Amino acid sequence: MPSRPRLTPAMADVRRAVRESIVGRAEEGDLLLVGLSGGPDSVALAAAAAFELPRAGMRAGAVVVDHGLQPGSDRIADAAADLARRLGLEPVVVHRVDVGGSGGPEAAARAARHAAFDDALDRTGARFVLLAHTLDDQAETVLLGLARGSGPDSLSGMDAVSGRRLRPLLAVRRATTHAYCADAGIDAWADPHNDDEQYRRVRVRATVLPALEDALGPGIAEALARTADQLREDSEALDQMALEWAEEIAEHAEAGIALSVSALAAQPAALRHRLIRLAVHSEFGVTLSRSQTLAVARLITHWHGQNGVDLPGARVERSDGQLVFSATA
Amino acid sequence: MPSRPRLTPAMADVRRAVRESIVGRAEEGDLLLVGLSGGPDSVALAAAAAFELPRAGMRAGAVVVDHGLQPGSDRIADAAADLARRLGLEPVVVHRVDVGGSGGPEAAARAARHAAFDDALDRTGARFVLLAHTLDDQAETVLLGLARGSGPDSLSGMDAVSGRRLRPLLAVRRATTHAYCADAGIDAWADPHNDDEQYRRVRVRATVLPALEDALGPGIAEALARTADQLREDSEALDQMALEWAEEIAEHAEAGIALSVSALAAQPAALRHRLIRLAVHSEFGVTLSRSQTLAVARLITHWHGQNGVDLPGARVERSDGQLVFSATA
Repeated sequence: MPSRPRLTPAMADVRRAVRESIVGRAEEGDLLLVGLSGGPDSVALAAAAAFELPRAGMRAGAVVVDHGLQPGSDRIADAAADLARRLGLEPVVVHRVDVGGSGGPEAAARAARHAAFDDALDRTGARFVLLAHTLDDQAETVLLGLARGSGPDSLSGMDAVSGRRLRPLLAVRRATTHAYCADAGIDAWADPHNDDEQYRRVRVRATVLPALEDALGPGIAEALARTADQLREDSEALDQMALEWAEEIAEHAEAGIALSVSALAAQPAALRHRLIRLAVHSEFGVTLSRSQTLAVARLITHWHGQNGVDLPGARVERSDGQLVFSATA
Repeated sequence: MPSRPRLTPAMADVRRAVRESIVGRAEEGDLLLVGLSGGPDSVALAAAAAFELPRAGMRAGAVVVDHGLQPGSDRIADAAADLARRLGLEPVVVHRVDVGGSGGPEAAARAARHAAFDDALDRTGARFVLLAHTLDDQAETVLLGLARGSGPDSLSGMDAVSGRRLRPLLAVRRATTHAYCADAGIDAWADPHNDDEQYRRVRVRATVLPALEDALGPGIAEALARTADQLREDSEALDQMALEWAEEIAEHAEAGIALSVSALAAQPAALRHRLIRLAVHSEFGVTLSRSQTLAVARLITHWHGQNGVDLPGARVERSDGQLVFSATA
C-alpha cells in the first residue's frame, strides 16, 4: 500500500455513500462483508468500508467469489483477497463456486455469486454484504430491461437494500470509483469480461449509453437511475395491492382457481392485469406475457360470449360471473 | 391518382388498424377528420380512412395545419389539402396557425396544432381527429422521456385515445406507412424537419434507436411501446388513487393545505409521493421535482424534529401530526 493519500473528492464521495448506506441499518459491533471482485468498483468500496466502518464501531470483512470461468481465476481471486487484507479487511473469505448454465451465463454467474454471499454471511455471522453496483450499472440495467419490454418489473433496476444485500454506490458514477482507486494508488484488476461484446450489458455500456449521451446531452445515466427509483416504487405499491386483493377475491375451484368478473371489472387495468398474472403464476407456476394477460382481460372488458383462452398449462373460461382457470394436460 | 392498386400487406395492416381504432368509439353517420401533414404517416392514414370509413357508414375529412415555420409552408399545406380531396376526403380544412415560443419550438408547434384540431372539430362537427403517430414515434417518445428522468409520466408515451384524438397507428411501424404510400403510388412529402438534427427527436430516431437495435437485437421499438402501455396503466391507476385519497385527507388550512402525517405514513411511497405533489400543485400551481418531493417525504419517514422544507412559492412544516403547506411571499 502507498503512504496514506490525502482525501480527494472521489474518495470523499465514495466514503460518504458508504456512511449513508449503513446509517439506521447496521449497528455498532456488526460485521459487514464487501463483495469483492478485485475490479475498481468493489476495490473502491472495500477501501472506503475499511476506512468508514471501524469509525462507526463496525467491522469490515470481504467475500471474494471465484466463478472459475476464466483461466487463472483462482489467482485473481487470491490477489483480490490479498488486497482486501492489505486494506485491513478481516475476515476475508474466498469462495469457489460452480456456475450452472440455466438462464444464460450472466444469470447463472449471478445466482452462484448470490448463493456464495449468503453462505459467507451465514458462516461469518455478518449482517450485510455490500455490493459495488454503481449508478452506471443501474442505468445499464434499466436499458436492458427496456429492451426486454417486459414491463415495470424489468425496468425498475436494483434496490439499494434487498434482504441482506446493501448497494451503497447506486448513486455514485463509475468514473468516481475509478478515480478513487487512482487517487488512493490502488491497482484494481481489469476484468476482460467487461470489454467482451458478446455480453449485452457490455454492448449497452460501450455503445448505447454513449449514443444516448451524444444525442440527448449528459445526465442520461442519472435520469435512468432516477426513473428506476420511481418505477420501482410504483410497481411495489401495485404488486402489494394486487397481493392483498387476491387474498380477498380468489376462490379455489375444483381444478384450479376462480376470480369474480365484477370484482376484476371494478379495478383499474393495472390491478386487473396483475391479479390475472398472479392467479396464473400462483396456481400453475406460469408467468403470462403481456399479450396473454390482455387476451384473458378481454374476457372481462370486451365480453361478447367468446370462447375461453388457452394459456401454457391452463385454460380460462368465463362462466357464471367468474373467470375459471383450470389446469390442462 | 394511379389506377386502384391491389391490396398489399402494408395496406392491409394500416386499414385494419384504422378499423380497429374506430370500433366501439365512432358510430354510423359520424364525421372523422384525419390530421394531415402530407408526410407518409398521415398520408397512409388518410388513404386508409378514405377507404375504411365509408364502409363503416362514416365520413372521412381532413384537417391540414400550416405552422408557417418554413418558407413555402402554405404551398405544402395546399398540396396536402389537394391530395386529401383526391383521396376522397371531405371536408378538407386548412388551418393557418401562429406558433408561439413557450416551452421550446416542438412544444409550441404541438400546442398550436392541437388548438387547430380542436377548432376544426368544433367547426365541422366531427367526432374525432385521427393522428398518424406510429409505433416508432411512440418508441422515440419513451426514450425522450427516459432522458428527462422525470418519472413514469414522461415515460408513458402517447395514448391511443385521449379526448377527441385517436391514434390508430400506434402499433404500426413507420416502415409500414411508407410502404403503404409506395404500394398505393402516392407521393408523400418529405418534411426536412424530420432530418434536422437540431431536434432531439430526430437525433433519437437517427442514432439512438439504431444503436439500441445494433446492441440488443431487433424488436426494441416494439419493446419500448409495450413498456409504455404498461407504465401508462400503472401511472393512471396510482394517479387516480392519489386523487381519490387526497379528497379524503387533505384539509384546507389558514394559509394553505394540511395533510395528516399518520395517513401519509400508512400508504406506500408511490401514493405518499403522489399526494405530496398533488397537494402542492393544486394549492400553489407548482410541480415538485423528485428531490423536492423526497425532501418533504423525509418529514414523515425520517422525522427527528428537523426544520421544515422550502419549496418554490411555499413552505412545509410538520406540526401537530400534520404536514402544513403555506404560501410564501
